[in-house]
Amino acid sequence: MPYAARLKKVQRWLRRRGGGALLVSSPENRRYLAGFSPEDVSLKESAGFLLITPQEAFLLTDPRYREEAAENPFFEPVIYHRGLAEALAPLIRKLGLRRLFYEEIYLSCARLKALRRKLPRVKMEGVSGVVERLRETKDPEEIRLLKEAEARAREILKILDQEIRPGRTEREMAWRILELSYRLGEGPSFPPIVASGPLAARPHAEPTERVLQEGEAVIVDLGVRYRGYCSDLTRTFFLGKVPERLREAFYLVKEAQRLARPLMQPGRKVAEADRAVRSLFRKHGVLQNYLHSLGHGLGLEVHETPPVSYRSRRRFRKGQVVTLEPGLYFPGLGGVREEEMVYLL
Amino acid sequence: MPYAARLKKVQRWLRRRGGGALLVSSPENRRYLAGFSPEDVSLKESAGFLLITPQEAFLLTDPRYREEAAENPFFEPVIYHRGLAEALAPLIRKLGLRRLFYEEIYLSCARLKALRRKLPRVKMEGVSGVVERLRETKDPEEIRLLKEAEARAREILKILDQEIRPGRTEREMAWRILELSYRLGEGPSFPPIVASGPLAARPHAEPTERVLQEGEAVIVDLGVRYRGYCSDLTRTFFLGKVPERLREAFYLVKEAQRLARPLMQPGRKVAEADRAVRSLFRKHGVLQNYLHSLGHGLGLEVHETPPVSYRSRRRFRKGQVVTLEPGLYFPGLGGVREEEMVYLL
Repeated sequence: MPYAARLKKVQRWLRRRGGGALLVSSPENRRYLAGFSPEDVSLKESAGFLLITPQEAFLLTDPRYREEAAENPFFEPVIYHRGLAEALAPLIRKLGLRRLFYEEIYLSCARLKALRRKLPRVKMEGVSGVVERLRETKDPEEIRLLKEAEARAREILKILDQEIRPGRTEREMAWRILELSYRLGEGPSFPPIVASGPLAARPHAEPTERVLQEGEAVIVDLGVRYRGYCSDLTRTFFLGKVPERLREAFYLVKEAQRLARPLMQPGRKVAEADRAVRSLFRKHGVLQNYLHSLGHGLGLEVHETPPVSYRSRRRFRKGQVVTLEPGLYFPGLGGVREEEMVYLL
Repeated sequence: MPYAARLKKVQRWLRRRGGGALLVSSPENRRYLAGFSPEDVSLKESAGFLLITPQEAFLLTDPRYREEAAENPFFEPVIYHRGLAEALAPLIRKLGLRRLFYEEIYLSCARLKALRRKLPRVKMEGVSGVVERLRETKDPEEIRLLKEAEARAREILKILDQEIRPGRTEREMAWRILELSYRLGEGPSFPPIVASGPLAARPHAEPTERVLQEGEAVIVDLGVRYRGYCSDLTRTFFLGKVPERLREAFYLVKEAQRLARPLMQPGRKVAEADRAVRSLFRKHGVLQNYLHSLGHGLGLEVHETPPVSYRSRRRFRKGQVVTLEPGLYFPGLGGVREEEMVYLL
């Protein structure tokens, strides 16, 4: 169980910051540190929070998750009935804490306001990336889970390759992906994209009732979860002879992958890979048709740090897992995208 | 199209507050007001925001949703490349706005910090419930969509009633629900719960590999989305002869529904219904086995206001749609819950 080691890293971080406690509100950080797997019901409805001090660790949740919390070997359960602040305030007072770090990306303004009101003497400090940075470096077991998730996504793509044809609708194909995601894994890691014909000009198109036509390109972007870990792969399927422009774009996108792949190595600058792709696209006059960055980290979330972008100032590190997904989009005509998962080992 | 009328209501609210603009960051509020249906990728990754002033309305999004935004008849599209603050700050300056209301439940501390940094002279005011309160009162078309969503959930329960039996696993049943949710609707409105035997003592249990056994109760809680609207129904299936305690609890829960239903009427106090249930459970010595409130609103979200709780100080209003879901949970033994949707018409 990796949880004890992960918890220790956070506690070491707290000690370096001179003490205080970290309130964990991100559901994935919660799962990563405590192995507590219930998902949040919605943006405004959390399944629980962690409070970590240099010596102790608590799992705060409501009675619905009482049993799950009681089983946790590392975090002491604290049950609240009327919301987090009700249980957190007395706990922080009891522990004599003067400083609370909170995850500013994952805490709403409303929750912070409620905490400030109940704890006027505690210094609240927003932090970001504390746990996410630990999550960036995957351990061997996490790599194994990601590869399992990837293998399942590949299996689905292989089945789709047999089944995709003119006459089917985008939604039918998307439904098939979802069905296979639950059969082969824990379900999709995000709502699958099946974008056909001109709709493929939208990188994040939602599947519609549109019927796939002979002679068009269909972007299929899907991922499967396996023990919480997310895969993410994209293929562009050509239904018969597609417009010249899209065929050219497809080869460019494949060329971009070939160009970028060797640049993605531990120690190399992250920006280099996306810069190489952008300069290739610029040379071919299609830079304005490239609407997103080259890739993103993935793990317990399908989009994690590091972003793989020309704007990055970081270097790749061993243990990171990222996507490599150049795409080109032409309003009115369609689009192409190919996506692989890259393991920086 | 109800969007123009909904937008006007928000603009009227702004005028009553003396002007300024409302930044909408809740994905469901965004869909409700603008009909913009792409879902957020994650807590930290939004598909877009609305900025509403007394006279104007903007839809801010990134290039991935450029085409969807361009089609919107009521909201003027504004595309950002590096995040909301980049586009919002110049827009607010151009409009000469001095005051920005933000949805405090749906805006992270990090986003607010970024906005404050870029707009030091704009007064930021957190608000909550502005759009949610409009959403509480469903119009006839919304009622129709909710009833469609409910009919699909009922159909799934009917199929499950035929298929559930000892020997199947919780996950197999959950997978079947998901498959049917996509076949009959747009997919599940939340991850379905299939909680068997002692695991049914957890109101929000996640389906496991546990094999269903003769002589136990299985709680199945599911919902289907239909054109964005969520249904939510629960049934407790008895596989053969279950322990006396659970059978008694089941009749108590049905009795609780019968008691509460007539109290759920426009104009009546919300608290009354839950109080009646709690006093019934108290009389039978099982109040401590009732771990949640009696129900919740539902619509574009599966959990919306109003909460149906003894702590509520409000009255039911015409057009609200809420669940009625008493449940009783016995650690080590199991649980029972029954849930219906109630239309306050």
